Amino acid sequence: MTLDDFIRDQAALADAALNRWTPDATIAPETIHKAMRYSLFAGGKRIRPLLCIAAGKAVDPNVTGIENAAIALELIHTYSLIHDDLPALDNDDLRRGRPTNHKVFGDAMAILAGDSLLTLAFEVLAKLPDTSDRTKVALIAELATASGTVGGMIGGQVHDIEGERQKPTAELLERIHRAKTGALLRASVRMGALYAGATDAQYQALSSFGEHVGLAFQIVDDILDVEQSSEELGKTAGKDQAQEKITFPAVYGLAKSKEMAEAERLAAHQALDSFGDAARWLREIADLVVHRKS
Amino acid sequence: MTLDDFIRDQAALADAALNRWTPDATIAPETIHKAMRYSLFAGGKRIRPLLCIAAGKAVDPNVTGIENAAIALELIHTYSLIHDDLPALDNDDLRRGRPTNHKVFGDAMAILAGDSLLTLAFEVLAKLPDTSDRTKVALIAELATASGTVGGMIGGQVHDIEGERQKPTAELLERIHRAKTGALLRASVRMGALYAGATDAQYQALSSFGEHVGLAFQIVDDILDVEQSSEELGKTAGKDQAQEKITFPAVYGLAKSKEMAEAERLAAHQALDSFGDAARWLREIADLVVHRKS
Repeated sequence: MTLDDFIRDQAALADAALNRWTPDATIAPETIHKAMRYSLFAGGKRIRPLLCIAAGKAVDPNVTGIENAAIALELIHTYSLIHDDLPALDNDDLRRGRPTNHKVFGDAMAILAGDSLLTLAFEVLAKLPDTSDRTKVALIAELATASGTVGGMIGGQVHDIEGERQKPTAELLERIHRAKTGALLRASVRMGALYAGATDAQYQALSSFGEHVGLAFQIVDDILDVEQSSEELGKTAGKDQAQEKITFPAVYGLAKSKEMAEAERLAAHQALDSFGDAARWLREIADLVVHRKS
Repeated sequence: MTLDDFIRDQAALADAALNRWTPDATIAPETIHKAMRYSLFAGGKRIRPLLCIAAGKAVDPNVTGIENAAIALELIHTYSLIHDDLPALDNDDLRRGRPTNHKVFGDAMAILAGDSLLTLAFEVLAKLPDTSDRTKVALIAELATASGTVGGMIGGQVHDIEGERQKPTAELLERIHRAKTGALLRASVRMGALYAGATDAQYQALSSFGEHVGLAFQIVDDILDVEQSSEELGKTAGKDQAQEKITFPAVYGLAKSKEMAEAERLAAHQALDSFGDAARWLREIADLVVHRKS
């Protein structure tokens, strides 16, 4: 089985779970369910669910039902994209090659669709089948903290907005990216570990992997924003520079940024040493994150 | 002890809990914590936490720590007000007699502050001290469902937005209000019951109370929007009519609406018959909801 096979199979499981947990577009009020589904099924790469599932399999190769927990991460990620794209925030018209949610459904419905996806993420975790209450609570606490204001995703967005007019220092850059994308990517791996019943040592090792792969992901994202076209990315390219965002290329230059991404990839591999072959998919996903072209 | 004493004491406990659980305004990123606190401590009546606490005491007069669970409802309610007031939705400048969140912090920060409060509500419930995992999961499932799109708060908001240009029928009116305000008010009572360890029969009786008091609340809200001035309400009066919202006075007229509110108050009382004196505060809160002037 190649990584392509793994991704295809697991993304299909995640998509099926998303489809099961998200109210059908025929259920009233129809508009909001259409809006939620529009962004959920817009060709996302499902990197967070894939990391969650792969981490679960690193702990227990026979883990089942983990895709139900994994999609909570995609629900949070998707809500954050919808709100981020709003005119009041990044004001973006294009996402994954299609008009953004508010361009199709209007600003009001896009705000409410984001709120709904955020709420649904926690509903899914509270209602997970065949999962102990202890595990559900641990998953919810992990996801809420990673999505929140203190070191979490929203905190990173605020730092990012406020950083647009600040001096691009290495310290500010690290703080923004650890929170903005790093926290949720780390939580993806951690939630997989928790779901599969990881020991403390396994949880710590996978956390370390998640931090390195999260940082690699962001460095590469910043590099792609400079090097790729909008068509290749499926979203507006070159926006970081236009908005004077603090990015890795802006602080370190392109060549050094590429070296840093590679160093994070290797550190991510090292964190998995104790897992042997069970962590195969995590290693390959880390490689993919760094070598991707969009 | 009078109801005023009860409200003062319990609202103080709820405020203290909100203050403990919400990151301090000195913690980075400061702006978002300031924005969250601006709307949380804006003189809200804390009706949802009070209902939750009073329901808990109806089940177990010696229940402790319930204010920590109760504030999750206030966090959800406050996020919904911030998002509702945005230019893309109700576009309101005044809330509880003060400028709305986005008028002070800007639309971007108001959107993120709402997202943060919503996320924090679930974080609080997942981290409740001295509470079993089973109870935490039940509370989270209850709150998420009541806040969601199918029969929950967001669903009601969507029906409300889409109802502005529809024929004001009794059926549409009931559907909107059962969801928009009713679901969260019912959840307030139910969460108090769950926290205090209610039996199934107690949970059902309190659910019925919550439905009646929720409907009464909305009918009175609609009446006050017609009869009171903006100064008395602390928010823009007469907006329902201006926006052609579907309201109880619009469908039934003022006199009939007042009769309906009184009937719901009595039905709420009846639902509490089996609780005796332990439900005293719930009865008095139901009376207050119907007889309030703002």
